[in-house]
Amino acid sequence: MSTVFGMLAAFLLVFAAILLGGSPVAYINLQGGLIVVLGTFAVTAISFRLQEMISLPGNIWNLLRHGQRDPNEEAIKVLKIAVEARKHNDILMLERLLPRLKDTPFLMQAMQLVVDGTQADEIEQIMRREASTASSRHMRAVDFLRRAGDVAPAMGLIGTLIGLVRMLGNLDNPAEIGPSMAVALLTTLYGAILAHLVFIPLAAKTEHCTEEEGLVNNLYAMGATSIRRKENPRRLEMLLNTILPPAKRVTFFKS
Amino acid sequence: MSTVFGMLAAFLLVFAAILLGGSPVAYINLQGGLIVVLGTFAVTAISFRLQEMISLPGNIWNLLRHGQRDPNEEAIKVLKIAVEARKHNDILMLERLLPRLKDTPFLMQAMQLVVDGTQADEIEQIMRREASTASSRHMRAVDFLRRAGDVAPAMGLIGTLIGLVRMLGNLDNPAEIGPSMAVALLTTLYGAILAHLVFIPLAAKTEHCTEEEGLVNNLYAMGATSIRRKENPRRLEMLLNTILPPAKRVTFFKS
Amino acid sequence: MSTVFGMLAAFLLVFAAILLGGSPVAYINLQGGLIVVLGTFAVTAISFRLQEMISLPGNIWNLLRHGQRDPNEEAIKVLKIAVEARKHNDILMLERLLPRLKDTPFLMQAMQLVVDGTQADEIEQIMRREASTASSRHMRAVDFLRRAGDVAPAMGLIGTLIGLVRMLGNLDNPAEIGPSMAVALLTTLYGAILAHLVFIPLAAKTEHCTEEEGLVNNLYAMGATSIRRKENPRRLEMLLNTILPPAKRVTFFKS
Amino acid sequence: MSTVFGMLAAFLLVFAAILLGGSPVAYINLQGGLIVVLGTFAVTAISFRLQEMISLPGNIWNLLRHGQRDPNEEAIKVLKIAVEARKHNDILMLERLLPRLKDTPFLMQAMQLVVDGTQADEIEQIMRREASTASSRHMRAVDFLRRAGDVAPAMGLIGTLIGLVRMLGNLDNPAEIGPSMAVALLTTLYGAILAHLVFIPLAAKTEHCTEEEGLVNNLYAMGATSIRRKENPRRLEMLLNTILPPAKRVTFFKS
Amino acid sequence: MSTVFGMLAAFLLVFAAILLGGSPVAYINLQGGLIVVLGTFAVTAISFRLQEMISLPGNIWNLLRHGQRDPNEEAIKVLKIAVEARKHNDILMLERLLPRLKDTPFLMQAMQLVVDGTQADEIEQIMRREASTASSRHMRAVDFLRRAGDVAPAMGLIGTLIGLVRMLGNLDNPAEIGPSMAVALLTTLYGAILAHLVFIPLAAKTEHCTEEEGLVNNLYAMGATSIRRKENPRRLEMLLNTILPPAKRVTFFKS
Repeated sequence: MSTVFGMLAAFLLVFAAILLGGSPVAYINLQGGLIVVLGTFAVTAISFRLQEMISLPGNIWNLLRHGQRDPNEEAIKVLKIAVEARKHNDILMLERLLPRLKDTPFLMQAMQLVVDGTQADEIEQIMRREASTASSRHMRAVDFLRRAGDVAPAMGLIGTLIGLVRMLGNLDNPAEIGPSMAVALLTTLYGAILAHLVFIPLAAKTEHCTEEEGLVNNLYAMGATSIRRKENPRRLEMLLNTILPPAKRVTFFKS
Repeated sequence: MSTVFGMLAAFLLVFAAILLGGSPVAYINLQGGLIVVLGTFAVTAISFRLQEMISLPGNIWNLLRHGQRDPNEEAIKVLKIAVEARKHNDILMLERLLPRLKDTPFLMQAMQLVVDGTQADEIEQIMRREASTASSRHMRAVDFLRRAGDVAPAMGLIGTLIGLVRMLGNLDNPAEIGPSMAVALLTTLYGAILAHLVFIPLAAKTEHCTEEEGLVNNLYAMGATSIRRKENPRRLEMLLNTILPPAKRVTFFKS
Repeated sequence: MSTVFGMLAAFLLVFAAILLGGSPVAYINLQGGLIVVLGTFAVTAISFRLQEMISLPGNIWNLLRHGQRDPNEEAIKVLKIAVEARKHNDILMLERLLPRLKDTPFLMQAMQLVVDGTQADEIEQIMRREASTASSRHMRAVDFLRRAGDVAPAMGLIGTLIGLVRMLGNLDNPAEIGPSMAVALLTTLYGAILAHLVFIPLAAKTEHCTEEEGLVNNLYAMGATSIRRKENPRRLEMLLNTILPPAKRVTFFKS
Repeated sequence: MSTVFGMLAAFLLVFAAILLGGSPVAYINLQGGLIVVLGTFAVTAISFRLQEMISLPGNIWNLLRHGQRDPNEEAIKVLKIAVEARKHNDILMLERLLPRLKDTPFLMQAMQLVVDGTQADEIEQIMRREASTASSRHMRAVDFLRRAGDVAPAMGLIGTLIGLVRMLGNLDNPAEIGPSMAVALLTTLYGAILAHLVFIPLAAKTEHCTEEEGLVNNLYAMGATSIRRKENPRRLEMLLNTILPPAKRVTFFKS
Repeated sequence: MSTVFGMLAAFLLVFAAILLGGSPVAYINLQGGLIVVLGTFAVTAISFRLQEMISLPGNIWNLLRHGQRDPNEEAIKVLKIAVEARKHNDILMLERLLPRLKDTPFLMQAMQLVVDGTQADEIEQIMRREASTASSRHMRAVDFLRRAGDVAPAMGLIGTLIGLVRMLGNLDNPAEIGPSMAVALLTTLYGAILAHLVFIPLAAKTEHCTEEEGLVNNLYAMGATSIRRKENPRRLEMLLNTILPPAKRVTFFKS
């Protein structure tokens, strides 16, 4: 949430700063924008696979939407399901629960395996593989965003140098020096905005989310395995607390 | 203490430098200030949760006020309480001591648990969780301050580039070149001041305080547990010395 | 693939930016280009052996062509060969398979050793040495590219400083100031392009490829050894999965 | 030694460069100097305690004067004392030796404990605590110098920006542009000199000295303990060699 | 070899760039050169001992001349000596071999110890101490070169700032602005050349050589010890292969 608002607010501030000074047209330079934006993607593409790049925006969006869960709350959600499953003593009854888990596809997938009667060991193995796949995909996204954050200012500098050389070759007409140099500086501005308002903060956010998501997915897998084994939910609480950081431990059952 | 004085002194020096050159009005640019200050917060907000950001100033203030305790002095304070508790052989008498511990809320909370008759193991567990929660909250504050220290100069640069482009587009009136460029440079100045006089030194201070606070909180928890167990204070001294750095060890009892 | 296209696209973008501004002749400066390109190689040569530098382009090219294999697909390819070898129960029949492996010289070499009747232990030893040699050669290539990515902008700066000093010594003719400074800036432009469009992205790509290639070569060696030992391919699958990252594990045989 | 001469030589070179160009008065700007010097201390003070900062110059001076001992020579000095102590077989005779050790206060303190008849274990404990206290105090000094080396150029930049804004606001009088900009650049010059000629090299030196001093203090403590235990000096030689780096081992006794 | 040629080529390129632009006299500024070169040494001397600095050029030269040996070739050379020593079964016959080892002083010293009849354990101890002394001396040289590579551009910047302040104070004579600024920029040019063409590449080279030399010296010591013990050379081959990287292992004897 704060990610989207933060980025919107930052862009609005930049636009406001531009508008307050008069005509915003002077800040639009399609050619310069293309050099920086396309150049950043082309150069970053040198170090990544096409396939990785295409699936990137979707991955980041998913992560930002789902990744910000409080491990404590999710542990309690898992414990509630475990308690319900134990009360009815009927795993198939969990099936009715599945639609409620739409917001947490990873937990839904794990519970679906429980409903299907998959063995506990296999559930653990499958879910761990899924979590690891997701995590390594997200870390590649972080790498990509970091690289792009390095490349964008470099492309801005290259664009500005091209513009400066052009301007310096046509000093005969003094009236054009100012506007030419303004255009040359625009690519540096675009590169700085792309890097500092988009790529670098998104990389920091994505990395933090990936760590949290890994922990939460681990909780889900533990919960599903424990439910499949029909263990006492109190034991599950103990297990979950072993992987939760001290600040996030749960005390669902009164001792 | 030196944190507040240092920051005040640094700001006074900058103001003095401005005043000595004549009118300080030339250095005030509300628009530029808003871009840098709000922009820094907006961009930093992309990588953090709103909730984390709101509780931040309070956390930092608390840490700076309480975090600068000398581990050696605190260990002696704990030993004094232990000796008193043993002399009267009456845990309830500790209750009268509690108001004196107002300055050290963590120690007060631990002693309250002792007074309440909580089991020693549970006291240790509760206090360790509290300490870990505080420490991870403070490390997030350090991360935030570091990020803000990176973002502020970037926002200053973006503001200056916007101002330069505007100035270069209006070179017709030579009388305005100087003042326009002065205004453009102001955001760079604001960004540098924010980063180097506020965020970066506060991050270094907060990190150092967090480390020290963790050690001191550990001493408090050890002391409360030992008092609850009615152990000999000499044994507590030995225990405290195992976690104190050699330079801070205590020799409260003559051997 | 995306490496070549990315680099082409980036260069096309830079050329387009130059062409759109008029005559591209102003951007060609043979002398400046030689200083940056030859200077970068000369300075990088100080830290590397001539022999290492000559074999470098070939190594990088080979790596980029062969290094981008999906470990999962390669594991399946190895398992298919193992199944075929077991079906015919005749190692010599593998000989007919060799020409099909031309694309994967490392696997071909391993299978050739199997066909030659080399002992399994020796195959493992030889292939591990080959893999290690390739890997350390590639890491030196990464070191080289990184160094070159540091040196190129430095040479660009040195070229620009030389040009600026020359220009400043001949300020008498104002008509020449602009073009002289344009020429001086060209070496900075060349250095930035070399570093950010060629060396730095290639270094990142080569490093990533080297890691992946090491894993895949390990799979090949494991496969060849297992085939030589006439082990059950199911056992080979298990072995391969122990070194594959969770996200890339194979399930070739239905259990 | 080379520390003081190096710093003197560097400052003389800078002064010579200034003098050769004419009047040195143009390089003196009290206001700018105060901003950079006081500003650096104020900002650094934000991250350190006042108490740490006051004791800093004395600590660094002591370290530079005493810290540069050759571990090999000091080991031999310790062995000589051990031999003498054994020859006379009279620990009290060591008392006459103490005044000779004025240059090495740490060794003198250790020998004083021996003369006082303190138990060997206690000598070891006391000296280890002293060494650890000194070492952690010195590492804080290194931290301080590094921080100051980061802050000084930042304060120089802030001073220059303040000066530039002032100059740009008064472009009406072209005769003043040059001198105003010269004054503005002075703070950058002061910041660069402070950081590169004072803080950064002192930090590197102090860190190296702290490491060496730790080793030498360890030798002293080992020697005093061994003398107190009336051990054979040959055994002490063996012990000292276990902590000396191979390049610095002693062979005091012919085997 | 490529070190000397690389550095020569880089300097020739810079000289060519200067010459092509006209008179090279404009690029010579004794005063600026002295500030940068002497200043770099003075500032670096603050962090190092005089003694270390004097022996530095000799150390680096020796290392560059001797350090670039192929571990594989050296292992074979050691094995050849071992075979010869075993054939004649007469250690004294090795004495005739010594003059042939002039190029490898470390190996010659080790073989001299064998000829002198020193015990194997003692040979190992002496040679290990020698190797460690050489290695730590070389790492200090690497530290020195790195520091110098940091200091040189800083001295260049300080020189340029001094020149700029001087120029800005004398703007009355516009004809002198250009040449004065050219002179001011020269120290930046000198600093960049010193750092990027000399210190930084030499540091990278010296570090790589030190690592390789350590391995080769280890091989020599192992060989001499084994010859002294009259072990079977096949056993020596095995031992050498345990410390050689896989890519450099020897197979001297057909199995």
